[in-house]
Amino acid sequence: MNDDRINASIITIGDELLIGQTIDTNSAWMGQQLNTIGVWVKRRVAVGDVWDEIWNALDEESKQCQIILITGGLGPTADDITKPLLNEYFGGKMVVNEESRQNVITIFNKYIKRPMLEVNLKQAEVPDVCDVIQNKRGTAPGMWFEKEGKIFVSMPGVPNEMKGMMTDYVLPRLPGIFSLPAVIHRTLLTAGIGESYLAERIKDFETALPEHIKLAYLPNFGMVRLRLTATGKNTAEITTEVDRLFITLQGMIQDVMVINEDKTLEEAVGILLGKHKKTVATAESCTGGYVAHLLTSIPGSSAYFTGGVVSYDNTVKEKILNVNKETLDTYGAVSGETVREMAKGAKELMKTDYAVSISGIMGPGGGSEEKPVGTVWIAVAGIYETVSRKFNTRFDRGRNIEITSVYALNMLRESILKENP
Amino acid sequence: MNDDRINASIITIGDELLIGQTIDTNSAWMGQQLNTIGVWVKRRVAVGDVWDEIWNALDEESKQCQIILITGGLGPTADDITKPLLNEYFGGKMVVNEESRQNVITIFNKYIKRPMLEVNLKQAEVPDVCDVIQNKRGTAPGMWFEKEGKIFVSMPGVPNEMKGMMTDYVLPRLPGIFSLPAVIHRTLLTAGIGESYLAERIKDFETALPEHIKLAYLPNFGMVRLRLTATGKNTAEITTEVDRLFITLQGMIQDVMVINEDKTLEEAVGILLGKHKKTVATAESCTGGYVAHLLTSIPGSSAYFTGGVVSYDNTVKEKILNVNKETLDTYGAVSGETVREMAKGAKELMKTDYAVSISGIMGPGGGSEEKPVGTVWIAVAGIYETVSRKFNTRFDRGRNIEITSVYALNMLRESILKENP
Repeated sequence: MNDDRINASIITIGDELLIGQTIDTNSAWMGQQLNTIGVWVKRRVAVGDVWDEIWNALDEESKQCQIILITGGLGPTADDITKPLLNEYFGGKMVVNEESRQNVITIFNKYIKRPMLEVNLKQAEVPDVCDVIQNKRGTAPGMWFEKEGKIFVSMPGVPNEMKGMMTDYVLPRLPGIFSLPAVIHRTLLTAGIGESYLAERIKDFETALPEHIKLAYLPNFGMVRLRLTATGKNTAEITTEVDRLFITLQGMIQDVMVINEDKTLEEAVGILLGKHKKTVATAESCTGGYVAHLLTSIPGSSAYFTGGVVSYDNTVKEKILNVNKETLDTYGAVSGETVREMAKGAKELMKTDYAVSISGIMGPGGGSEEKPVGTVWIAVAGIYETVSRKFNTRFDRGRNIEITSVYALNMLRESILKENP
Repeated sequence: MNDDRINASIITIGDELLIGQTIDTNSAWMGQQLNTIGVWVKRRVAVGDVWDEIWNALDEESKQCQIILITGGLGPTADDITKPLLNEYFGGKMVVNEESRQNVITIFNKYIKRPMLEVNLKQAEVPDVCDVIQNKRGTAPGMWFEKEGKIFVSMPGVPNEMKGMMTDYVLPRLPGIFSLPAVIHRTLLTAGIGESYLAERIKDFETALPEHIKLAYLPNFGMVRLRLTATGKNTAEITTEVDRLFITLQGMIQDVMVINEDKTLEEAVGILLGKHKKTVATAESCTGGYVAHLLTSIPGSSAYFTGGVVSYDNTVKEKILNVNKETLDTYGAVSGETVREMAKGAKELMKTDYAVSISGIMGPGGGSEEKPVGTVWIAVAGIYETVSRKFNTRFDRGRNIEITSVYALNMLRESILKENP
């Protein structure tokens, strides 16, 4: 335990988090960002829209941490009590912030184009004991308070509004207040190997790590991310040290490493396609467009992603992807033969260098004794050869689609690597 | 504040949550499930893989809540300390659970098909002071402890493993231990109206609600979910009461209501297509397959979703969707003319009753003065007519894709409603 480190606590406010109607994606992003400037998130707490609960959370968290980041409860409706509570907690009185008022008016004129309501203008009121953080993406301003050497920041729960304030205001301001350590991360992505096998393989490496360098395993859907984190006083020193260890680590897992950066599999595939100036098409049955979505979620993907077909119905496989009716009749839609023809058909149709195809049974219905739910066939048609492989997944529909898409992208990656040495 | 209610706290353990490498989706699901049996999630806390932090969280949360649900930290690697900690916290000693041991062996033989490691078998060890919750989907068993009238349950952080244990064991067992109130929810989904306008419209209704019935606004990407929650002793009584109010509420927002159930927009569209026995195809440019993915994420969607084309490259729009080259040259890919031809082309190609098409600029690059980032055109080709509409989005790429897909599905929904009265 580093007792000299600067700890933060994230308090998220809102009944919707406790009853589970909203998934908290904010905290993860905030944790990542704080980490990069050397602030450690020690705790995260979610409480409801209840006066005493919020008040107690402010008391409790500020006992343990120097920085308290609060999101949520700043909306225009009656259940949003964060702002009056903060005003009382810090002993202020409410005043209209002119810049925030102008911002509300501008947003209504420019984007919403409907008459403004009284509650909307009320968003420009803030306690007079805070520094106001202007909101470029919404109507509710953020608030920065200081009390007994602790920093309290209140931001909206809307992710892009919170992100804007963090990026433009909070992250740049904190290093001027606290003496923050240097923190260096090095992350790589592996695919096709389980967490415990990976751990077994690099056990000695892990055991030999110095106290100030940590290794984290971050598993997710058939992939495991490995991250080395070095903390110290001198950035240059720990960078050299962690880079040396990172090279050793890469050497130990070369065969299962996707990329030696903190990137996603779809980014890695995009980088590879870009590097070799190759294009790709998709032909998806059971994944229903999700592989195309992953590929096109990357900015600039139009340089290598030509297009895709979601061939849900067999007539689409036949008529558009040119799969033989005989193949479908003899082997079925979920078969090596069918996915090979789908991939070749898509490659031909879209005039690409590569095409990846997927057909399977994602559940909950549609399984049979011979082909149970979770049976998946994937093919990649490449420049020189077409490969196909069978997988079995064992989750619910949503997760089966996600993990199948990972398998497909990884097979595509392997084909590109093999054909473009 | 109901002081007689049964409160739960969810403790999630793992550095990966604090550094933001993992988004906590478990808590939301657990909150939803606990709510349905009348347990209120009062707090959620995330702490790192640090002995004292976990120990303190157990102490603190059990002061405030009767039920403490713990996820994470049960993996096979060295940083997972939850199990030995719980053993010490509850004063037990570690013993091998035979059923869990058999389960580990079965999973390795059936799915993983690789030699088992010693760490894997260690997962079958549990404190002798707990009831073991068998894990049908993974190797780490769950643990149920009781101490001074409080229930502590430890489960793996892997979502589907935790869900299995909650569904099969925890949720059925809790009502036998606590006297839980009746809780009835009624949820409806609206689209195309902002939270504050909705609130303004139903202000009087909301103000007049009795104390034991709450209204929640749950906004998400151009949609707002409204939920009435009634809590009481007599299920039949509060059901009658909340149903009556729910009908009143629906009457006030009929024009913007998508569905009067707790369903997603894509489910609502699927139900509508199923009801009218109509089929749909997609033609997506900027959304890159995401609309097809949403539609096919619903089990049984093959009954109404025929297929889709992701026409990222203009050649795909021309050659496969039959968009005129002249249209593309004259009006550009992001235009009402192009999306209308895309929708008609997809409907023709896939022989469906409906087709929805999308073309836009999702950013961060690709914008121009005339067509800035966020410009989107959507068309729906229906049985009788083709409609098109322009939208402007103002988020990052990922969110622009998501909100554009909501607009597209809602336009599709409106066309189906209009043409099938």
